[in-house]
Amino acid sequence: MSQELPRGFEYAGVRCGIKRTGKDDFAMIAARHGAVAAGVYTQNLVFAAPVEWDRRYTPSADVRVVAVNSGNANACTGQRGLDDAHSMARLAADTIGARAEQCLVMSTGIIGEFLPMDRIAEGTRLAAARLGSEQQHFLAAAQAIMTTDSFPKYVQRSFTVGEQEIAVAGMAKGAGMIGPRMATMLAVITTDARLTPAAAQDALTAAVELSFNCISVEGHMSTNDTVLLLASGNAGGEPMTGRRLAEFTECLADTCAQLAKMIPNDGEGATHLIEIEVRGTASNEDARRIAKTIAESALVKTAICGADPNWGRIVSAAGYAGPKFDPQQVDLLLNGFRLYERGAPLRFDAAAVSEAIKSQRDTRIELQVGDGTGHCRFWTSDLTHEYIRINADYHT
Amino acid sequence: MSQELPRGFEYAGVRCGIKRTGKDDFAMIAARHGAVAAGVYTQNLVFAAPVEWDRRYTPSADVRVVAVNSGNANACTGQRGLDDAHSMARLAADTIGARAEQCLVMSTGIIGEFLPMDRIAEGTRLAAARLGSEQQHFLAAAQAIMTTDSFPKYVQRSFTVGEQEIAVAGMAKGAGMIGPRMATMLAVITTDARLTPAAAQDALTAAVELSFNCISVEGHMSTNDTVLLLASGNAGGEPMTGRRLAEFTECLADTCAQLAKMIPNDGEGATHLIEIEVRGTASNEDARRIAKTIAESALVKTAICGADPNWGRIVSAAGYAGPKFDPQQVDLLLNGFRLYERGAPLRFDAAAVSEAIKSQRDTRIELQVGDGTGHCRFWTSDLTHEYIRINADYHT
Repeated sequence: MSQELPRGFEYAGVRCGIKRTGKDDFAMIAARHGAVAAGVYTQNLVFAAPVEWDRRYTPSADVRVVAVNSGNANACTGQRGLDDAHSMARLAADTIGARAEQCLVMSTGIIGEFLPMDRIAEGTRLAAARLGSEQQHFLAAAQAIMTTDSFPKYVQRSFTVGEQEIAVAGMAKGAGMIGPRMATMLAVITTDARLTPAAAQDALTAAVELSFNCISVEGHMSTNDTVLLLASGNAGGEPMTGRRLAEFTECLADTCAQLAKMIPNDGEGATHLIEIEVRGTASNEDARRIAKTIAESALVKTAICGADPNWGRIVSAAGYAGPKFDPQQVDLLLNGFRLYERGAPLRFDAAAVSEAIKSQRDTRIELQVGDGTGHCRFWTSDLTHEYIRINADYHT
Repeated sequence: MSQELPRGFEYAGVRCGIKRTGKDDFAMIAARHGAVAAGVYTQNLVFAAPVEWDRRYTPSADVRVVAVNSGNANACTGQRGLDDAHSMARLAADTIGARAEQCLVMSTGIIGEFLPMDRIAEGTRLAAARLGSEQQHFLAAAQAIMTTDSFPKYVQRSFTVGEQEIAVAGMAKGAGMIGPRMATMLAVITTDARLTPAAAQDALTAAVELSFNCISVEGHMSTNDTVLLLASGNAGGEPMTGRRLAEFTECLADTCAQLAKMIPNDGEGATHLIEIEVRGTASNEDARRIAKTIAESALVKTAICGADPNWGRIVSAAGYAGPKFDPQQVDLLLNGFRLYERGAPLRFDAAAVSEAIKSQRDTRIELQVGDGTGHCRFWTSDLTHEYIRINADYHT
């Protein structure tokens, strides 16, 4: 990607010894002149200390740095965990002369263990010394936030909004499990667009709804899920409002979706990335509930793993998702093959459909359930022996 | 089991050639002098033709026969499927001189194929000739409704309600998948208690709520799930009301729970039966939602498969179940070991807990989430390589 990075940010990724594997485990993303920041967080009642910290300080008009560690989630750690998150923010803020409240923190890794604060201090020191605004710095940060991910996940885009050239860059991590314990999804999006804190929050909330809230590996909601948006404003001009803000939000959603689907594509043990498109519901939320139910059915996921065009599993999952529809209005396509129409089975070449699933990593399920305008695209991975091996065969 | 069967019923199980394996695939349960009947059915919008038929004719004051086939679910088969269900009811009713509306039907097996009506006709003819009220007849019926089950599932109990001796017998089938396609759970409970149709329906609905609605293999709701209660009234006396009916309902719930938990115990590929007890919620329904979310987490199920005392997966699943609770009030026990108390991790001997999981089939999770009076027991199976093999490696 020769894409320009958003102006106003520096990145670093280093190793400070939290992970026993010796891989990089600490990242910093700095905005020395400040950035507007917004966050969207896990809805789990059992949420980690860094989530509590970031919720308190977003949306914000002036965030200076985000510090991220992998290898330890700082979750289910009580008051000490919250004190540690505060210390981590202070340590990172100190390195660039900011206040703790101007630093957001993210953690991912093992649940129920306390953060090794000496390692965190070392990480902030090392990362501060290596901050830079080049591609290599961005990549180092994207790599340092990985846990069981098999590749770093990032997107770099530019958009013309009104007359203005806007850069957006995002990095994310997640593969369904982390180290030996827990699924965690983290993402940081930087942009040089000029936004107010409220507009940044609205844009991020809308974008996440269509992207990170539309992915699943095994459907287990983490204690640490966090998506942050940092807007430096370096593109100049007035803060975005009205039609420009709507256009920006669309660009942001597009970027987030591109980033989000990399997560199930790298889902633990995954051999297929499954895109599920549901149409014809009363609302988008109804479509999302149906798509999510299909995405999280072990029977659907094992069928795709086995290249089995078992449409009964898909249609019956839609039927228990919750939203009402008329079963006689249901059409289903699998990788473009029409298998079920108006609530009745069609004759089809099962061997050809199976071959179509087997021969490509991307699988596409299209389900029409009526003539409403509701719509959702959702991404998931298949369920394989390798998933069981990763999650059952190795002890924590 | 030397238990007496409920008076007023005859049973048969035969082979009529629906299953390609050559195993028994047709059962009849007859009440020549009529039985009060109640039913509880799948909540899936995509429900099978026999479910539509039975819904129409329950609760009933006078059902004469239940006909059950395995090997074909008669689901997603449109109007022709409904006509076939009607024909199946008529064929079975004819053999004992009853009307089609006095026959309930159940089907389980492959989805999306039409019932082979010549085989069904043969099945009703053979079964009618073999009806009997002995243990062997009951067992033959319990065996003929099996699909991927590895053992027949039945319970025979007697209770003293007031001054009266009441017999209750139940049979069920289900292992998470059927033939090559679809999870289906069927159960028939017979009793000689005297009940009105409304009382029978109320008692069954209450009992199912605490039993069949508290089990899961992979959480995929079938198109065919059906539980029927047939009450012959042969125990005599007035129809049960008030305290006697409440007592009977409790006995019925107990019988249903015993039968229901056999299903996840025989869950596809299962190496553990997991009992999840949740206490301290505002309502029983809140407890059920939390227990069900834990039961259906692939991370919890693989952890038990791997004998991994990974409490973070359990606590975090509770956190996204929906019902509100204070994470600082949460206590967790796993096979009697206290792992988490008042929202904080405890030190424990991980090897000992792991050994306790590994050395027995039954695993017990106890979660207290507050001081409310809500409570639920829920049963599920673990998620193993064998589950993936069954559902991904073999084609339909």
